[in-house]
Amino acid sequence: MDKIVECVPNFSEGRDQEKIERIMSVIKNNNEIKLINYEADADYNRTVVTLIGRPQKMIQALMDLTKVCLKEIDLTKHSGEHARMGAIDVIPFIPISNIKMSECVEYSQILAEKIGNTFDIPVFLYAEAAKTEDRVKLPNIRKGEFEGMEEKIKDPHWKPDFGPSRRHPSFGALAVGARDFLVAYNIDIQTDDEKRTNQFARAIRGSSGGFQFVQAGPVYLENRGHTQVTMNILNYKKNPIYRIFETVKMEARRYGFDVPSAEIVGLVPKDALLRSLRYYYGIENKEYNKDMPIDEVVEGCRKYLKFRDFDETKIIDYFL
Amino acid sequence: MDKIVECVPNFSEGRDQEKIERIMSVIKNNNEIKLINYEADADYNRTVVTLIGRPQKMIQALMDLTKVCLKEIDLTKHSGEHARMGAIDVIPFIPISNIKMSECVEYSQILAEKIGNTFDIPVFLYAEAAKTEDRVKLPNIRKGEFEGMEEKIKDPHWKPDFGPSRRHPSFGALAVGARDFLVAYNIDIQTDDEKRTNQFARAIRGSSGGFQFVQAGPVYLENRGHTQVTMNILNYKKNPIYRIFETVKMEARRYGFDVPSAEIVGLVPKDALLRSLRYYYGIENKEYNKDMPIDEVVEGCRKYLKFRDFDETKIIDYFL
Repeated sequence: MDKIVECVPNFSEGRDQEKIERIMSVIKNNNEIKLINYEADADYNRTVVTLIGRPQKMIQALMDLTKVCLKEIDLTKHSGEHARMGAIDVIPFIPISNIKMSECVEYSQILAEKIGNTFDIPVFLYAEAAKTEDRVKLPNIRKGEFEGMEEKIKDPHWKPDFGPSRRHPSFGALAVGARDFLVAYNIDIQTDDEKRTNQFARAIRGSSGGFQFVQAGPVYLENRGHTQVTMNILNYKKNPIYRIFETVKMEARRYGFDVPSAEIVGLVPKDALLRSLRYYYGIENKEYNKDMPIDEVVEGCRKYLKFRDFDETKIIDYFL
Repeated sequence: MDKIVECVPNFSEGRDQEKIERIMSVIKNNNEIKLINYEADADYNRTVVTLIGRPQKMIQALMDLTKVCLKEIDLTKHSGEHARMGAIDVIPFIPISNIKMSECVEYSQILAEKIGNTFDIPVFLYAEAAKTEDRVKLPNIRKGEFEGMEEKIKDPHWKPDFGPSRRHPSFGALAVGARDFLVAYNIDIQTDDEKRTNQFARAIRGSSGGFQFVQAGPVYLENRGHTQVTMNILNYKKNPIYRIFETVKMEARRYGFDVPSAEIVGLVPKDALLRSLRYYYGIENKEYNKDMPIDEVVEGCRKYLKFRDFDETKIIDYFL
């Protein structure tokens, strides 16, 4: 079985459609990796690209992307609301199928070294690939942004992991690393009481003593007329979806609030869903097969996890 | 309403019954504080005393206890399995009623200073009262124990917060501080499968990504023929008992394991129980009154939290 990674390069152009398309053409013309989507944000002046594929093919595609961004983007002329330090700002490697985090760290190092040597761009390793504690979090590395990086990078403490110890004049600097898949997940609460919903968010989020890898807050959806617990799950293996869903239902029960549905924002790995289906199959004493067809996964998620607006195109493995 | 603290001094004698009684007599003869219990452990050669009372009266009682331990215990002649650095090794202040953590920190400082000045004993502030990060955890301070303390304490980094910068020749050194009430809580699982039970422990414990203030592990009870998830709850306000109980039940359900009962080891504040009863009253739409009589608390804990071997003498407020 093929090793599959996801990479999510963020490049610093979100306004000039022609330029964005010139950049994206190197990805669109590449048949060896799969473009899931790309979203340009004009306020941020930044485009987020989601790719999946085999690691070696991915590295080649990202080298091509770097080359075209180096040609097309000049950070001395860039402004936008999102913090950034490079023409490509960050590239994370995310394990999807048949691949370990440690392998993603290795591939991120290979790419980082290759970019540093080929294009003379300073590259920092971050997240799981970070070599020091203060390079784990991207904002730490990026602090000062493109403008501040000219001085910052001369400090031996901020010597890049690869490439030269000076800011590239037009590209800036780049962070490459590895991290877990982040599941964006919301649970609908049949109430407009945002305070109560915040109470449920506090019960489950790591920063309030809840599940360590869950970020959560309340939100009122005006169009829908109810609140949500809105979440990022930073490690769906340690904090599986079903456990979060059942805990929020348990909390909501005290006020008699209905929890009719939930939703995935963006994509989710099949593995994250199977871990939850397995729980409900266990309760119903139903035979569980980890190779179940994708239709059965979708059906199970709707039935047990009450996913709304959900079909196979939300499952990343569907594109493999 | 009176401010009430709990203090749990640990002194370094657990074998010589006559000596233990001579030491305990200063507590037993003191009518201004309440002795909950004291447990001498011969292997540890250590006695753990649980006291409740008003802070000023508590400070006086602990001064008396220090005086008698100084007279009775010589650490140069002491051995036992439990790490220790002083004749009294540690005294935590724990908020029980109408008192804040910040006040407990203040009272612990008052006692620490008084012991340091009066008896010429070096005293370290720890836990919530610690002045530096590396004095938060008692084992850090105690490392090297009585024997190593002679040298350690000369290091400016380990200058005591009060008292002299040298080990007391027979008493050693003492840690005084403030911390939250620790609830020792076990949930019975109707299986002998310790591996599965460990899976439930991992689901809820902070170190595996679960609830931050929960320490948990599996244990097989040979006499009873089933396993338990055995826990310390370090902050019962952020990780309330009902949430832990319901989450473990939720996890056990996947294997069809019954969760027939649970138990509190030692004492528990009424406040910790009320926070859980309130949840179940909410579910049953039953009127909740925080001043409910203690009989109703006991009955509710048996009914909803399935406490076994539980009566009012397990509730610390019963002794107030």
